[in-house]
This record gives sequence, structure tokens and C-alpha cells, in this order.
Amino acid sequence: MAAVSALDGLIHALRRLPGVGVKTASRMAYHMLQHDREGAQLLSQALHEAVGQVRHCELCHTFTIPSICDTCLDDSRDNARLCVVETPADQSAIERTAAFKGLYFVLMGRISPLDGFGPKDIGLEKLIDRASDGVVQEVILATNFTAEGEATAHVLTEALKKRGVQVTRLARGVPVGSELEYVDLGTIAHAMVDRRNA
Amino acid sequence: MAAVSALDGLIHALRRLPGVGVKTASRMAYHMLQHDREGAQLLSQALHEAVGQVRHCELCHTFTIPSICDTCLDDSRDNARLCVVETPADQSAIERTAAFKGLYFVLMGRISPLDGFGPKDIGLEKLIDRASDGVVQEVILATNFTAEGEATAHVLTEALKKRGVQVTRLARGVPVGSELEYVDLGTIAHAMVDRRNA
Repeated sequence: MAAVSALDGLIHALRRLPGVGVKTASRMAYHMLQHDREGAQLLSQALHEAVGQVRHCELCHTFTIPSICDTCLDDSRDNARLCVVETPADQSAIERTAAFKGLYFVLMGRISPLDGFGPKDIGLEKLIDRASDGVVQEVILATNFTAEGEATAHVLTEALKKRGVQVTRLARGVPVGSELEYVDLGTIAHAMVDRRNA
Repeated sequence: MAAVSALDGLIHALRRLPGVGVKTASRMAYHMLQHDREGAQLLSQALHEAVGQVRHCELCHTFTIPSICDTCLDDSRDNARLCVVETPADQSAIERTAAFKGLYFVLMGRISPLDGFGPKDIGLEKLIDRASDGVVQEVILATNFTAEGEATAHVLTEALKKRGVQVTRLARGVPVGSELEYVDLGTIAHAMVDRRNA
């Protein structure tokens, strides 16, 4: 019935969002229809526009509307250093630190055999081309320090070193502001191994 | 810049969904653009259609596309009994029990002074009109057993009794399948007060 299907269709469509099950989707649908129809209309339009306009940067693979993103076009950045991150969110976290002025390569994922993501899905070939262009002198791997992020870093390291590219990895260690008593043992062990001269 | 704004606009619009903060909204936007553009397009359309088509049933106030919903039009239901619920989700929970064959009135909310929802916002006048139509003989209050749901039930009871309508409330007590040891004390106390002959 049409009566049921527009509401059910919305609930069904909301479930395509990551982390949204049928109860959350129902709650969202009821809320939007009852209290925020303007927001629903806005979201409808924003989705439509983003799908139509947003694509991947030809150089760094991040989301962009022109064919090359603003960061890659920025002349003031150090193009000898290339930082590899999993997602645009990770890139934006690094940008907020203001500790890095080089360029990025965004994998848009990580190697994860269980989810069916292999080296092709993270644009390994594209990264190798970019890193071997003669301008890039150092590739800094800033994938997450999770099992999958570490595995991805390992695969990238092997592939890049084979082509003579200098590869570094973000330092592992005790987070700033933390007390040793509450830091997990794996982190302390790594911090011990990677200790540096004071 | 246009490049940034389509993505930022999507993240901003996703935050209108209940319970979605900036981090979740970013994750959703990245996921949809990277892995499920079809889903994003589908959601855009579903939102547009639902906003355009879904309205409130003239009789029971629930979401519907025709002016009167299918449940209200169903001749086989007992129109002497009117069950009052807070949301369509509550209505659907009661429907799934198959323990009620009467009609419904959906408040689409609850009285909540802190959120600025008063008796007008839950359609109190409409409910009173409906309950005093001479056909309805019993109003069953099935608002939630939360502070706000109980307050709403109290207000409705006062207003309806004043007009000579018989008002009942769902039984409070120990949930089916539970062990007393793990049931909260307020529930046990209510179950004790409302005890019935075995």
C-alpha cells in the first residue's frame, strides 16, 4: 500500500546508513516526519548534491568537487613529504595538529581481508605511482594503530621500499597527558622498545 | 568553496537526524560516498517522498498517506476500545502482541514541560472529541512507564474522567520471564500493590 510504503521506504533507506538498525531507523523517520520536515528535505537535497558532485581527487584520492583537491593544489605545501591516511577524517585530524605541512594520500579504507578489501581497493598502484614520481622523498604512514591499520602499513612499507622510497611510520608511544597506570601494557611495551634519548 | 560545501553540507544535514553528532555524521557521509552512493540516492528520494506524502490520520493522528489510516478504516476492529500510545512504534509493538483488536489514538509525543511539549502538542482536544463520540466506551492508556509517560497518562485520565469516559491503564508489574532478584525495586513494589487473585 502506498500509505505504508513511503514511511517504510524511508525506514528501509535510513538503514543504509552505517550503524543504523531498524529501531534507530524508525526513531529517525518518526522524528524527522514529526518534528523536522525541513531537516528531512535539507538532508534529501544534501545527499542528492553530494552524490552528484563529490568525486575523488586525481592526485590524493580524497573527496573533492574539482578534479584536483585544494590541498594538492596548495603551492605552499611541502611536496617532498607524502602522508598516507585511511580516511578524510584522519587527514583532517592531522591537519588540525598543524604539525605537518606536506601532502596527503587518502586510502579511503584499509586492507581488510574479512571485509573483502585488498590492496587494489586502497589504490596501492596509484600511491606507488605518486610516491615514485621523483618529487616525493618520504612517505609517512599514518594508518590507524589497529590490527587492520598495521597490516595495511606493513603491505605499503613492503611495496614502497621495494621501489626505493623512504618510508616512515607515526611514532607509537604513551599518549600525551596520560598516566602510566592507566595506559595499556602493549602501548607501554612499544614505548619502551622505541624509547629515545632524553 | 563548492568543493568543500557539498560534503560539509551533507555532514551538516545528517546532524539533523536524532542522536547523530558531528563524528557520526562524518562517518555516515564518508561511508555513503565511498561505499554506497546508490543507498545515498535512495535515501535522498525516500526522504523527499515521505515529506511530500506522509501526513497525520484525521482520526487517530498516526502517520498515513490517505486522510484516514488503514487501521481506522478496518471494519473488523472493535471501535468501542481506544488505545492511547505515544508513538507509531508503540502502536506497532501492541499490534505485534495480537492482544488488542480495538482502535488507536497516537499522541505523537508526550507531555514534557522541559522540552516545551504541553497538552496541545499531543492533540488532547482531538482525543477528547474522539473519546466522547458515544461509540468509544473505554480508553486504554498505553503511554510509556517513564516519568513523562506517567505524567501524560495522569493528565489524560483527569481530562477524560471529567467527561465521564472510562479510562484504564496498562498493568504494571514484573516482566514475563524475569527473576525477582534482578527486577528493580520500584517494579516489585508496584507488582505487590497491584497483586491479583491467583
